[in-house]
Amino acid sequence: MTSDDDRRINTIRFLAVDMVEKANSGHPGLPLGAAPMAYVLFDRFLRHDPRDPTWSDRDRFVLSAGHGSALLYALLHLTGYDLPLEQLERFRQYGSATPGHPERGRTPGVEVTTGPLGQGFAMAIGLAIAEHYLETRFNQPGFPVVGHTTFGLCSDGDIMEGIASEAASLAGHLGVSRLVMLYDDNLVSLEGPTSLALSENVDERFHAYGWNTTFVPDGNDVAAIDAAIRGALAQPDRPWLIRIRTHIGYGSPKQDTYQAHGEPLGPEATRATKQKLGWPLEPPFLVPEDVRAHFAQGIAQGARRSAEWRAMFERYRSSHPDLATEFERMMTGQLPPGWDAGLPVFPEGSVATRDAGSKAMQLLASHLPELLGGSGDLSPSTKTYLEGLGDFSFHGPCGRNLHFGVRENAMVGIVNGLAAHGGLRPYGASFLVFSDYARPAIRLAALMQVPTTLVFTHDSIGLGEDGPTHQPVEHLAALRAIPEFTVVRPADANETVVAWQLALGRRGPIAFALTRQKLPVLDVGKYPGLREGVRKGAYVLEEAPEGRPEVILIGTGSEVQLCLAARTRLAAEGVRARVVSMPCGRWFDEQSPQYRDGVLPPGVPRVAIEAASPFGWERYAGPGGKIIGLDRFGASGPGAKVLEALGFTTDRVVDAALSVLGRPPKKGAP
Amino acid sequence: MTSDDDRRINTIRFLAVDMVEKANSGHPGLPLGAAPMAYVLFDRFLRHDPRDPTWSDRDRFVLSAGHGSALLYALLHLTGYDLPLEQLERFRQYGSATPGHPERGRTPGVEVTTGPLGQGFAMAIGLAIAEHYLETRFNQPGFPVVGHTTFGLCSDGDIMEGIASEAASLAGHLGVSRLVMLYDDNLVSLEGPTSLALSENVDERFHAYGWNTTFVPDGNDVAAIDAAIRGALAQPDRPWLIRIRTHIGYGSPKQDTYQAHGEPLGPEATRATKQKLGWPLEPPFLVPEDVRAHFAQGIAQGARRSAEWRAMFERYRSSHPDLATEFERMMTGQLPPGWDAGLPVFPEGSVATRDAGSKAMQLLASHLPELLGGSGDLSPSTKTYLEGLGDFSFHGPCGRNLHFGVRENAMVGIVNGLAAHGGLRPYGASFLVFSDYARPAIRLAALMQVPTTLVFTHDSIGLGEDGPTHQPVEHLAALRAIPEFTVVRPADANETVVAWQLALGRRGPIAFALTRQKLPVLDVGKYPGLREGVRKGAYVLEEAPEGRPEVILIGTGSEVQLCLAARTRLAAEGVRARVVSMPCGRWFDEQSPQYRDGVLPPGVPRVAIEAASPFGWERYAGPGGKIIGLDRFGASGPGAKVLEALGFTTDRVVDAALSVLGRPPKKGAP
Repeated sequence: MTSDDDRRINTIRFLAVDMVEKANSGHPGLPLGAAPMAYVLFDRFLRHDPRDPTWSDRDRFVLSAGHGSALLYALLHLTGYDLPLEQLERFRQYGSATPGHPERGRTPGVEVTTGPLGQGFAMAIGLAIAEHYLETRFNQPGFPVVGHTTFGLCSDGDIMEGIASEAASLAGHLGVSRLVMLYDDNLVSLEGPTSLALSENVDERFHAYGWNTTFVPDGNDVAAIDAAIRGALAQPDRPWLIRIRTHIGYGSPKQDTYQAHGEPLGPEATRATKQKLGWPLEPPFLVPEDVRAHFAQGIAQGARRSAEWRAMFERYRSSHPDLATEFERMMTGQLPPGWDAGLPVFPEGSVATRDAGSKAMQLLASHLPELLGGSGDLSPSTKTYLEGLGDFSFHGPCGRNLHFGVRENAMVGIVNGLAAHGGLRPYGASFLVFSDYARPAIRLAALMQVPTTLVFTHDSIGLGEDGPTHQPVEHLAALRAIPEFTVVRPADANETVVAWQLALGRRGPIAFALTRQKLPVLDVGKYPGLREGVRKGAYVLEEAPEGRPEVILIGTGSEVQLCLAARTRLAAEGVRARVVSMPCGRWFDEQSPQYRDGVLPPGVPRVAIEAASPFGWERYAGPGGKIIGLDRFGASGPGAKVLEALGFTTDRVVDAALSVLGRPPKKGAP
Repeated sequence: MTSDDDRRINTIRFLAVDMVEKANSGHPGLPLGAAPMAYVLFDRFLRHDPRDPTWSDRDRFVLSAGHGSALLYALLHLTGYDLPLEQLERFRQYGSATPGHPERGRTPGVEVTTGPLGQGFAMAIGLAIAEHYLETRFNQPGFPVVGHTTFGLCSDGDIMEGIASEAASLAGHLGVSRLVMLYDDNLVSLEGPTSLALSENVDERFHAYGWNTTFVPDGNDVAAIDAAIRGALAQPDRPWLIRIRTHIGYGSPKQDTYQAHGEPLGPEATRATKQKLGWPLEPPFLVPEDVRAHFAQGIAQGARRSAEWRAMFERYRSSHPDLATEFERMMTGQLPPGWDAGLPVFPEGSVATRDAGSKAMQLLASHLPELLGGSGDLSPSTKTYLEGLGDFSFHGPCGRNLHFGVRENAMVGIVNGLAAHGGLRPYGASFLVFSDYARPAIRLAALMQVPTTLVFTHDSIGLGEDGPTHQPVEHLAALRAIPEFTVVRPADANETVVAWQLALGRRGPIAFALTRQKLPVLDVGKYPGLREGVRKGAYVLEEAPEGRPEVILIGTGSEVQLCLAARTRLAAEGVRARVVSMPCGRWFDEQSPQYRDGVLPPGVPRVAIEAASPFGWERYAGPGGKIIGLDRFGASGPGAKVLEALGFTTDRVVDAALSVLGRPPKKGAP
């Protein structure tokens, strides 16, 4: 290491240490140990333009070990992102641009939100997949419009989390190109030495997955780190794990102990560390002039590179105007004219909403090259294979279907990476019950507000024989409770098509809950308000006789048909019932009070039915309302039988309606 | 293979096929391919007494590939469990003992509920850990009271799921003994050939984890399977993966295709398969007499073995009466006299509930050898290390602290296995936000109703600087929505102690949500109803002035203190407010209507506050009530600042109370 490298690395180290000290909160251990590798990467390899952090062909960097955020902020500051020193001084303060863990959208240069371990690992793979897909779609001879590399930095926590194992296995299978993961192998985790819980041979494991691996025995050896990264970039056809042996809390009295992981060093140890590494004790947040000047060269270089790319893109625009227009359209997230033309309208009949969703996807995919994705080894059941569009590949013709394998958490993490890259509208699919496996990634989609679309089929006990292990009960509630996340449970084929249409018109994440079983189609001729109604989250599907409801029947998904049947039965009893279909409570909540009161007039008693946990339904059932839900697990048996046995019948809706009106149940009803 | 083996294996195969055919639903592919390995295991190795399926020293078998349930049911029937042929004929029918996936408690011989892939893999490891712990605790020279083996059968889906990777890594690290996992490596998954998504070298990966591995190239080679299992049992000091190359749907026209995986063969292919394998076309559900007679010998052998064990145990009782008594107590799930004596009572002061929980655990662990567990690399933060009780080990002194590493899903899966074994009261711990990673296992704990205890600390935005990636918002709602699962969020140190006490008195799973930050202690002298109140889920913590509430303030956890402060402030305004602490809504729901109406009298308006998603709170806030919750993600900053900035203040409770009473807000309030 030259003394220049040394000074720059120490600048990074002590910016991070001083940030943690000033905040009196944070993780100094990783920055002290991993600063050399991060420095080498950012200073010598990362192709980016910090003054234009949205340049589409920038290399992506993912700090999967998000607790090392101070390291990242120090680097972003030094390399010229719009992150002034004052923001470093406000590390972990309310409203600052330097939160405890990196948050996409809050800090320029932060590609994805990380912290929950393993997620960044999976998202990095998604970013690399996105790069390759766009590359195969847009590059032309002499025009490398897309050609960047994805770098990651992970820790032993990432290595242990199952999502990273899933993602690594898939990445090895696919032979993900242009992906370089640095592993900060410091032998210490939060509880103590990693030897408490981790003794596997990580290199051997990754080799088994099909990764290239290399080991740098001294994390302070800048030349060795340089050589390792250079070697990886020279053989970009398979993913690389560069394991680098570091010392957590390097140079501090807490070096190599878990005490260096997640607590400030404290003033005394901070002084001792600065002394040990030959750093001025004062001032804090020191950036020596020569260090500043060095990084300024990098800023200029980044600006030149992006300018060259832009010039190249202008030539591309002349040679390949259609491709250039499409590239810009996709990268800015615009939909093309006519993108939804020809979406199916289902006539009366009987169609599973998973099948309707499939039909919508096929049409949309034919118009939208940005639509790609796959299922967690369930596409014959989720019906989410894009017919005729081929399988995605790094090393052969590149289609648009990903086979994620039985790896739901990695699937959604990778889809998040695809979505965060820009240019794509990716989806993942599984059974609703297995959304549980993917919740950590689903939460990040919501936190990042990326356009991740999730198709969850087999959405209730109506799936039947597979039984309670496969029958979702609490999943709708659990997903609806996620802030800034949208769940749509359409009542029929036509609502499903509209839901897909609306999903693509939005920027945030969304999940569909679709049936395995067939449902009666709601004819849009008979129900002209359906399209607009779905957009509003809930609507009057069928008005009460004479337009004067005495009772309102609210249903979602497969239970709307029961409400319609009950309305007819109630009419025969002289009871006027309105049927409200509520595919998305969140959208309904966003409507004006006037609209909401129009659909659910205060004072009119309500019955709400959903073949799922009743948790949360009081909100819509209202005072005196009845909720027909499921406060137990399901059961194995033919779907229709299970639904009936657990009380999802027209009779029950009728009786609940009579009950809220204070009338006796129908004679003979169960 | 002898023709006898052949006949027995085909009996198993065609019982399974006929079950699936009759149900017109299920998975014939795995049973056809894996019948030989399952036969060899059950017939030659499994040490069990089917007439006494709860014999404590039986070998455990876990069908992690739960979709192969028909295989298991066929074996359980043939080997003498109380599972008559009529139940096989009612496969996947409502209310039968043969549900779509194996369910603990529904079918004798089914140890754990499986189906969600990877879960059985982790639970098997938990079962093996339980065995070793009990072995070290109870075995004496000449008295091998505990000495059984755990066997599993897994599929490529298990191999792909992250939870199995986590569990396998930990099992290799621990050197789990007496664990043999058969891997039905049939090269086909639901979407098609596994080569669509899986090309890793599984043997190499497991070797990297520290497992022994072996490969049987022909899954029909009974002798080779026998030799592989025999070899594994001869070297039981490390876990074994026996990879067995099979043919999904063996013998059927759909052999080696994904069509054999999850659909009935259909009558024609069933006939063709029977013809091909030389099996009579009729009758279905055929068990030849010689086959029946053969398995009857196994039944007798099992009965002899368990009788020998019981005789040995009687001698043990004479030699080691205290140990024998304790063993029987633990295995029957009884708590010893005085088990909760000396639990701490906290005086007025300020204590984080995670610290109070820790104190309770230490005391309980000193009385209860069955209490063991650990954290997902967070014990310094979750405070769940059992001081002075050592670390669990297979190859050294065996303590009671497990270090799960950053592997939450495997942690809870393993804890479920510990709980399902019998004899133990295991716990796992993490941050509440990371309960997301473990949801698939948490759900299984609820489905199985095993005594899994989960300690989730850092239970709100009050954790502060780590920011929104680490701050739970929707997690309380998401956990509460799980059927038959209990979540307790205590308001202070004393409620926490009571919650632990109640948890141990119950049989089902439970989770605690505990604070990182200190909370004022509720003095039990001042609040004598606290103990009984926690048991009832919600109670009047502090009555309104004059005992005549105009408004009720409902809080949980850290927000109860705001209700108490608001009550005082409101009293100064002449408003009489009652404070209700509601640590567990589910327990409250189970009380009599009289009790519930006593705590929350209908007609008295309410304010509910919880620093979490308001989802589901309408149930308790009632008509006209106000809910103070968080319908967004949190933010990074000092905890007190974040709580205040996002509205968790006394002022806000006061104003909400005034508002529900139709009075103007307090002047100067924010």
